[in-house]
Amino acid sequence: MSIKVIVNGSHGKMGKTTVETIVEHPDLQLVAGTNSDSDLAATIQEHQADVVVDFTAPANIFEQTQTIIKNNARPVIGTSGLTIEEIESLKQLCKEKSLGGIIAPNFSLTAILMMRFARDAAQYFPDAEIIEMHHPQKVDAPSGTARKTAELMHASRHNISDSQAHKDLARGEQYQGVTIHSVRLPGLVAHQQVIFGGLDETLTIRQDSITRKAFMPGVFLSCRKVMELDQLVYGLENIL
Amino acid sequence: MSIKVIVNGSHGKMGKTTVETIVEHPDLQLVAGTNSDSDLAATIQEHQADVVVDFTAPANIFEQTQTIIKNNARPVIGTSGLTIEEIESLKQLCKEKSLGGIIAPNFSLTAILMMRFARDAAQYFPDAEIIEMHHPQKVDAPSGTARKTAELMHASRHNISDSQAHKDLARGEQYQGVTIHSVRLPGLVAHQQVIFGGLDETLTIRQDSITRKAFMPGVFLSCRKVMELDQLVYGLENIL
Amino acid sequence: MSIKVIVNGSHGKMGKTTVETIVEHPDLQLVAGTNSDSDLAATIQEHQADVVVDFTAPANIFEQTQTIIKNNARPVIGTSGLTIEEIESLKQLCKEKSLGGIIAPNFSLTAILMMRFARDAAQYFPDAEIIEMHHPQKVDAPSGTARKTAELMHASRHNISDSQAHKDLARGEQYQGVTIHSVRLPGLVAHQQVIFGGLDETLTIRQDSITRKAFMPGVFLSCRKVMELDQLVYGLENIL
Amino acid sequence: MSIKVIVNGSHGKMGKTTVETIVEHPDLQLVAGTNSDSDLAATIQEHQADVVVDFTAPANIFEQTQTIIKNNARPVIGTSGLTIEEIESLKQLCKEKSLGGIIAPNFSLTAILMMRFARDAAQYFPDAEIIEMHHPQKVDAPSGTARKTAELMHASRHNISDSQAHKDLARGEQYQGVTIHSVRLPGLVAHQQVIFGGLDETLTIRQDSITRKAFMPGVFLSCRKVMELDQLVYGLENIL
Repeated sequence: MSIKVIVNGSHGKMGKTTVETIVEHPDLQLVAGTNSDSDLAATIQEHQADVVVDFTAPANIFEQTQTIIKNNARPVIGTSGLTIEEIESLKQLCKEKSLGGIIAPNFSLTAILMMRFARDAAQYFPDAEIIEMHHPQKVDAPSGTARKTAELMHASRHNISDSQAHKDLARGEQYQGVTIHSVRLPGLVAHQQVIFGGLDETLTIRQDSITRKAFMPGVFLSCRKVMELDQLVYGLENIL
Repeated sequence: MSIKVIVNGSHGKMGKTTVETIVEHPDLQLVAGTNSDSDLAATIQEHQADVVVDFTAPANIFEQTQTIIKNNARPVIGTSGLTIEEIESLKQLCKEKSLGGIIAPNFSLTAILMMRFARDAAQYFPDAEIIEMHHPQKVDAPSGTARKTAELMHASRHNISDSQAHKDLARGEQYQGVTIHSVRLPGLVAHQQVIFGGLDETLTIRQDSITRKAFMPGVFLSCRKVMELDQLVYGLENIL
Repeated sequence: MSIKVIVNGSHGKMGKTTVETIVEHPDLQLVAGTNSDSDLAATIQEHQADVVVDFTAPANIFEQTQTIIKNNARPVIGTSGLTIEEIESLKQLCKEKSLGGIIAPNFSLTAILMMRFARDAAQYFPDAEIIEMHHPQKVDAPSGTARKTAELMHASRHNISDSQAHKDLARGEQYQGVTIHSVRLPGLVAHQQVIFGGLDETLTIRQDSITRKAFMPGVFLSCRKVMELDQLVYGLENIL
Repeated sequence: MSIKVIVNGSHGKMGKTTVETIVEHPDLQLVAGTNSDSDLAATIQEHQADVVVDFTAPANIFEQTQTIIKNNARPVIGTSGLTIEEIESLKQLCKEKSLGGIIAPNFSLTAILMMRFARDAAQYFPDAEIIEMHHPQKVDAPSGTARKTAELMHASRHNISDSQAHKDLARGEQYQGVTIHSVRLPGLVAHQQVIFGGLDETLTIRQDSITRKAFMPGVFLSCRKVMELDQLVYGLENIL
């Protein structure tokens, strides 16, 4: 019995990549591709879909996810923009129906593992800096993944003294007590390294992605995992 | 109350470094340095030593460790050469006395974390290769740490097909299904990276040590941990 | 006045990429795409082509290049398979007509610079190893670029003692006195690093390509350079 | 016939390392170690010294170098602090006596080659960023070597648009149109990488030093080279 999947936002970059690569997974069956013009509720009902993968726009992701759950499909949400309150409300909705679901800001397995290892290493090595490297078209610096990594590291560190902003520009940005450097160059796609400094030794955790296909294994793993879950989970790291 | 420590093998390279750096740790008190000519049992008794750090020679490490335990001191063993049967026998001895102890092939915290992260990542990314890089005087290739890493990765991987020896020399050595490359160059000390390959993404875990001081935090952490333990533990990773 | 270019082998992977990206260069005008079924001589004559970029098959590249030169077009040859004698013969043909031309085994500018820098560094640092990393579908190990790099390094080194094959498999392949390691993992495309070891210092030259578009700047640079040359040049490094 | 060498500043860190390692070079003979209390002129005369290696303090390096030249010894100057005017004046002094000499801000051969390769690569790849990484005790950021590298790259680049200071802190410092990032962590000594971005490819030149011994080959190479020179040269890169 294959899992019946709808891809919502199937014309966007991530949605299109999902549609193109799902065929390589025989246990997953694409039953429909939908977008903002589609009647999502009706499509779920018609195909008795098990899972809806959502890569639409931030604007109405809360309503879309509500629709998914109310129609008894399991949400796999890659679209950003949900507030903490909205996530709590959606968790409650899933709980009432004992329905599984996943909301993930990043579906790359190597990025998830990098963040997890960085969080764990920060317990032993409080001194650490992040270098994230992306293509020049990226609008924000530092990247969301670098910020998320710093937050996780900060939460697991002990005895951190109050850090101050660097006075030298070359020393980068301090965020959550972790210094972040952002490199922007053509020829790069999405890369991050976290360097931990100890006594005459260093530990480096590095992640490199070269196309958006890198996110697909995380998406398809989520499609399978939500079938076993009875609640909505935030963050792919919590189901690995 | 500081912990009273004897360094056995205090004239060797590692022992000497231990003696030189223990003074930076006020909670640890060096009460004696011993070597093959010393009466270790008498020295332990005389100083009522809590811990014996051992960096002597493989030849009689089993007898030395027995002496340590029988005299109610806690062993922190960095000397290699103990067989699995000997370790079991020493564990039994510690158990009878409810005495803590640690035997560690590698005291570098970054090396321990690298091995742990490599083991965990291997669950998700079965395709991986190890590149270890050392100074040209190193006699063995691949390194013991590379072998240990491969063993841990092998044990945590699923569904590994039988791998075959590479026919091209440049492809390195296959050990426990993991390909290992050994670089030997002046200017290097002790470095290792483990690269995991996924769909259009890679994850790299890298460790660099530049002097033997890098092993000291692990040694001193062990001196503190054995005071809380009531058994002999093999591998620093088990007390982190 | 734009340069009139024919792409021979326009249906192959490299030819196709050339056709797709030449439009971004207003000084270059694609006048025709040809393949093994086309009458290359007639197409050159008809369009009065200045340059023929050739990415066809090794089988008849010698005849194709003769045709290009005899019809007064300048060859830019990316197809491999020409022997040293054939290259000499083609050089003679260009010389008689004072016609420019380029034969290049690798059009990546970063690869060319890496090889040049590796050759220069080998003069000062005889101890060096190459780590080349590619996708698992690559059939040969070590790569052609790694071999070419080793040849260049070997030629510029002084006082090299006779090197022997390594007895440990993990130590890789010795080629021209340079040890080469070949990593093959999913998530990789085409990468190479050359590490030079000195007294307590190392120098690393690394090159990463993530798509075949990386070869295009070298191709288009060649299209412009051959217009200024009055001879056939072998190797992109000689026109940089 | 060995070259007779005086080490001025023989009690400082660099001077001491020079004294300790010169014995490994049979063609170089240490005839005296001097410091601020010594009569340098008399010592040169007494030993008929060929070369004076100077690692004293910036305060009176100009006078010291004048003394060296006036007493017919060849200066090998690693002490910083000379102004451009002073260097010109010292060059004139050497010229009058047809005496060789070297003033070098950095004696590391890998650092010199890194700077040279970075300068050359900048001609082809205008987009580049520098990441320099040092121990946390280093007072300045970015490092002098990073600044020197950026200056060399800037001078060899063409068509550089006016660059503006980054508005995001994480984007580092712009110096001579090159973005520099400074990492400061325990476990690091002195490392720098220059990353060049092209179309779907990158080139990285990296240099790692782990002790001050890394500077010795450059010092001893200079001792030999000044014997052949008949002028004062500024920058080790000019004699390689």
